[in-house]
Amino acid sequence: MDYSTNFSKSTSKKKVVAVVGGGLVGALNACYFAKRGFQVEVFESREDIRQAKIVKGRSINLALSHRGRQALKQVGMEDTIVSKGIPMHSRMIHSLNGTQYPIPYGKKGQVTLLLQPAETYSNTKLNFAHKLLNWSTETGAMTFLRADGAKEEIQADLIVGCDGAFSAIRKQFLRQSRFNFSQTYIPHGYLELTMPPINGEFAMKPNYLHIWPRNTFMMIALPNLDKTFTCTLFMPFDEFENVTTGDQVIEFFQKYFPDAIPLIGADALKRDYFRLPAQAMVSVKCSPYHLSDKCVLMGDAAHAVVPFYGQGMNAGFEDCLVFNEIMDQLNEDFSAVLPEYTRVRVPDDHAIADLAMYNYVEMRSHVNSKWFLFRKYIDNFLHIIMPRTIIPLYTMVTFTRTRYHEAVKRWHWQDKVRNDIVHSSLYKVLLRTTAFAEIFSKARSEKGN
Amino acid sequence: MDYSTNFSKSTSKKKVVAVVGGGLVGALNACYFAKRGFQVEVFESREDIRQAKIVKGRSINLALSHRGRQALKQVGMEDTIVSKGIPMHSRMIHSLNGTQYPIPYGKKGQVTLLLQPAETYSNTKLNFAHKLLNWSTETGAMTFLRADGAKEEIQADLIVGCDGAFSAIRKQFLRQSRFNFSQTYIPHGYLELTMPPINGEFAMKPNYLHIWPRNTFMMIALPNLDKTFTCTLFMPFDEFENVTTGDQVIEFFQKYFPDAIPLIGADALKRDYFRLPAQAMVSVKCSPYHLSDKCVLMGDAAHAVVPFYGQGMNAGFEDCLVFNEIMDQLNEDFSAVLPEYTRVRVPDDHAIADLAMYNYVEMRSHVNSKWFLFRKYIDNFLHIIMPRTIIPLYTMVTFTRTRYHEAVKRWHWQDKVRNDIVHSSLYKVLLRTTAFAEIFSKARSEKGN
Repeated sequence: MDYSTNFSKSTSKKKVVAVVGGGLVGALNACYFAKRGFQVEVFESREDIRQAKIVKGRSINLALSHRGRQALKQVGMEDTIVSKGIPMHSRMIHSLNGTQYPIPYGKKGQVTLLLQPAETYSNTKLNFAHKLLNWSTETGAMTFLRADGAKEEIQADLIVGCDGAFSAIRKQFLRQSRFNFSQTYIPHGYLELTMPPINGEFAMKPNYLHIWPRNTFMMIALPNLDKTFTCTLFMPFDEFENVTTGDQVIEFFQKYFPDAIPLIGADALKRDYFRLPAQAMVSVKCSPYHLSDKCVLMGDAAHAVVPFYGQGMNAGFEDCLVFNEIMDQLNEDFSAVLPEYTRVRVPDDHAIADLAMYNYVEMRSHVNSKWFLFRKYIDNFLHIIMPRTIIPLYTMVTFTRTRYHEAVKRWHWQDKVRNDIVHSSLYKVLLRTTAFAEIFSKARSEKGN
Repeated sequence: MDYSTNFSKSTSKKKVVAVVGGGLVGALNACYFAKRGFQVEVFESREDIRQAKIVKGRSINLALSHRGRQALKQVGMEDTIVSKGIPMHSRMIHSLNGTQYPIPYGKKGQVTLLLQPAETYSNTKLNFAHKLLNWSTETGAMTFLRADGAKEEIQADLIVGCDGAFSAIRKQFLRQSRFNFSQTYIPHGYLELTMPPINGEFAMKPNYLHIWPRNTFMMIALPNLDKTFTCTLFMPFDEFENVTTGDQVIEFFQKYFPDAIPLIGADALKRDYFRLPAQAMVSVKCSPYHLSDKCVLMGDAAHAVVPFYGQGMNAGFEDCLVFNEIMDQLNEDFSAVLPEYTRVRVPDDHAIADLAMYNYVEMRSHVNSKWFLFRKYIDNFLHIIMPRTIIPLYTMVTFTRTRYHEAVKRWHWQDKVRNDIVHSSLYKVLLRTTAFAEIFSKARSEKGN
């Protein structure tokens, strides 16, 4: 292979970076490495995904917030992507009795595939239908099986594993001594349903993440650009197994989500419910993220998270950004950059994986409880009077680049402060202040019960 | 293969049980299944380990306590094995200043290989140097590579994976959806040294687990039948890396274990310290333990634990016993027995893995602290006055068959009770009672400082 004419920035850099996996994180990484002038080869086992039908149902993972935007900004892609998104102002809670009330929330962007921008770099090559057969972190030699049955060999200076939650690259890490790894499946599965537009308009208010919290299970709905909503039902696998006929589906929805039946349509509901079996959700943590000075894991390959904090994609994008920052600090010396990336990034990715798991519990149950709402309003109130001292966890995670693990540490500290306040006499004074009374009464009226 | 003449009990049972792994748990399992009349095939990838030199340094795992003994008893092997052990009465703590004081403890048995007894069953065949190539949990078909290069096929009704912490059988579980798995390496490594006999006698008091606790690291020593001690040094890997020359070894021992230098011998110390690199220690947890109705994991393959509670082998032996109990309850119906085994055994094995990890911290630091000793004596005192209500955790784990996870639950409850007592006025009354004062003053004098 001859790349000598392809360099956009410098011909002195001839190092080859092989990005394994052409998903969102792989594509963004390609842009980062290309921008630095490396020879970038992206390998994707599937056919060109831009030519495939859009796979619905990954939307739960694709809420773009501050971290993701910052990562896109570095390679000049923020504006393009954000302009194609739908802003998410609030969570809209659907009570069992049909009332709806909003809880302030973040923004959601739908991200189109990033492969197009990656391909605009002349020093980047996208290789589809390339199945990784084997590779060596000693030498950087990689062998792929092409769709035509031929084998292709490549010599990489750095292998970047962006091949998702079931990463092939990561499997070789498992054979090394002292590689920590965990995969945890939650007892819930998920199933997706489409809510069509009504008279060409969204069937429910857009700009909201709609949530039907029902203790052990819940449904959420997110708007799409085509005016449909993707509804995702999260439920323990054994409860899925109890619903086996169309009539049972309707009976189930009558009992728990009556307002959604006319919006989805009874017939569509009966049919689509059984289109696919319920899908499993896994949380993956590992450490270290690198092997020798030739291989590193990023995105879901390094840290698959359950989709309950909307940070899956953002954390993956921030991986690229953090790696890029360390590349600056350590002059692109892989032997120093890779261990440093592990040192810096592991605690943050583990923290967001834990937070997503924590939210898995919170979204199902607490979101519906008065104590949860009350705590939330106290936190917001404290944030208003002490904006630099008390910052809600959700704000730190979603709207700042505070390191995830520091956000968690600070959250625990704030929790203690808030509890001290609630149990102190200051609280009784606060209760009488106008501002507080106003916020609290607003909360009660918005809850609608 | 024709087994028709081989059955010890019944010719109606022709089911084949393939035990993968000829270590301690595999061999014991073979006895259990053979006793039930199954056709048992044990497959071990290594050569006959009875002909190999005894591998020193696994002694830390081989403390036989109540659970292990009960498991051996069921197949009539308790007395033979126990008679070959050395009773362990106490932990002997070596302070930095050379003083020694005992903390009451359990018993230790050295377990000879169990393959001999397994082979006495006529319906059991031991296959050494058989490397597992592939297998199917759908059909039970297995293919092995023999030492002579030939392939051997076998059709199993049940595959029992007893192939240790890095189990090959378990790898296929990882490919299944919803298999939870974690492997956690601790930052410590270990290194073994031999303390020779002095004038044909033990160099230190036998019948003790000798411990040199030194906060971030520690050394332990266990007696062997040949009057040697095996000393095991546990230390973070980065501290091992700081000691690179013989002189540094001596300097290090002068600083932390001066009393051990003359006993091991300075020259031997300088030499043996570098014989092998420090070994890693891993904690493995997974769930479920079964795949379809044809495969089950036991022993380290299901739950490798760090060697700090002396329960590794006992938990593995108890696996066999628990499986056997469920086989009785459910009439050897694998399709019912396997899920029930997972349901019953997973929480207990996870509990002992967690306890071993907890002890990893405790043994290094707390064992040396006054608060730890004080708590221990309070617990022992409460046990004396309320023997059925307050049972020290160590007693439940080591001397009973209380389920591990129930022992942990009870321990947390007792901790609360003890703390309540310590902070109550009752405690002040207790402090004045003769019995308590006696125990406490004994504790202080035994501590020797």
